[in-house]
Amino acid sequence: MIGIFDSGVGGMTVAHAIEKALPEYRLVYFGDLARTPYGSKSPEAIERYSRQNIEFLIEKGARLIVIACNSAASVASDYVRETFDLPIFDVIEPAVKRVKNLQICVNEKARIGVIGTRATVNSGIYPKKIRELCLDAHIFSQECPLLVPLVEEGWVNKRETKMIVRSYLAPLKRKQVTALVLGCTHYPLLKKIIQPRIGKRTTIIDSSEELAENLKEYLQDNSEFASELEKGGENFYYVSDVTEAATSTARRIFGRKIELIKDKGF
Amino acid sequence: MIGIFDSGVGGMTVAHAIEKALPEYRLVYFGDLARTPYGSKSPEAIERYSRQNIEFLIEKGARLIVIACNSAASVASDYVRETFDLPIFDVIEPAVKRVKNLQICVNEKARIGVIGTRATVNSGIYPKKIRELCLDAHIFSQECPLLVPLVEEGWVNKRETKMIVRSYLAPLKRKQVTALVLGCTHYPLLKKIIQPRIGKRTTIIDSSEELAENLKEYLQDNSEFASELEKGGENFYYVSDVTEAATSTARRIFGRKIELIKDKGF
Repeated sequence: MIGIFDSGVGGMTVAHAIEKALPEYRLVYFGDLARTPYGSKSPEAIERYSRQNIEFLIEKGARLIVIACNSAASVASDYVRETFDLPIFDVIEPAVKRVKNLQICVNEKARIGVIGTRATVNSGIYPKKIRELCLDAHIFSQECPLLVPLVEEGWVNKRETKMIVRSYLAPLKRKQVTALVLGCTHYPLLKKIIQPRIGKRTTIIDSSEELAENLKEYLQDNSEFASELEKGGENFYYVSDVTEAATSTARRIFGRKIELIKDKGF
Repeated sequence: MIGIFDSGVGGMTVAHAIEKALPEYRLVYFGDLARTPYGSKSPEAIERYSRQNIEFLIEKGARLIVIACNSAASVASDYVRETFDLPIFDVIEPAVKRVKNLQICVNEKARIGVIGTRATVNSGIYPKKIRELCLDAHIFSQECPLLVPLVEEGWVNKRETKMIVRSYLAPLKRKQVTALVLGCTHYPLLKKIIQPRIGKRTTIIDSSEELAENLKEYLQDNSEFASELEKGGENFYYVSDVTEAATSTARRIFGRKIELIKDKGF
């Protein structure tokens, strides 16, 4: 199966995109709701949690892993790739690839904004990866630690949320960024309030669809490996804790009821 | 030693009050920053975490436990009192006692507001305990899940925080509550913005000082037990994860630098 994990339910935006792009494959998801959020925790804690989550997914039959959490992808990608011998995808590479495909890097004055949790922004991973492709880009990063709790509360259309988004985006708006990378899988749920506040000329980059496309290409290019993955049958959504708020966020993301199965209490 | 635990650093408002009331006793604190916050998690998860935290404090020498987290006190108090054979204090009883001491209950129209995390409000513990003392009280509860992240971000004086506080308090203000119980150890840090928004005629009840007084009385009444507790020497502040935000919130609470010792990674 294709194994996907996140600190909570935000990564379901990625799972949903993979489900649409690769409907024939079986998915197993793990949301670490018992220890969520990751974005305000230390790199050491996030590395340990990522390793445990992958061990859990392998136990449930995963043969390929998607890290659907930017905080985990930012600080633990190298560590888990050294630890586990199976293909591991994350949400950062596809976002960087989309920046490249925008062709804004041919312009020396490319100005790119990145928003994410504190762990993601402190890791410096996005500026590093974007500069590998786009040497002279000006990159402006902004940590937005309150957006995850606001999304998890379902406050996506509240006036207070709009004010907080405006306040976080103000420094990036002043820099007139051409593109804005949503460096957290919760943020696509705020896209409608982010776009008018950053300005309509800024392209918003959300990695979930791009990741699903990359994964599709990988499975086409590696047909032998792909043929060994389970097809058909139900997808499983495991969590380390079940709450009503999570159940309702999951429903909002998929547009249907998702059964969250409690397993693996940490 | 006196063992104190919280999901993070909010409980340090309680530790600080105990330190001032009982300066001769040694304290050992544990903040579960690796799994914080508790308030949005399920009762089962909070019970398990509370048991593990108490085991850790006992290992470090605690002979008396203070649950300095309303979410844990609300859902896990009975469970841990059945599990462990040592005196366990929590932040709920002292708040209820202060409501009683206000003498507002003699008035049949006593109107009492309670704010807390989702776990605390859903547990129904405050209305239950207050009604035991104050049969005819009208109790109005309001969950405020965003206040913990706002405090942890240090956003205590921001306009957005004031708006969110006003929006949470609006239903209680309409009910013209006589007293407002701060049912979360993070909220005393917001007292200055809560008071003008609930109205100056409402008495704000913060359990940390009352808890310290109760503890002092207990130790006076149980002098043999008290004589066995360690006196003098340093207090220890353990955490399951160390972050800059936590270090700075701890400094804000104590008004001095607090060394957070990383131990017990969950």
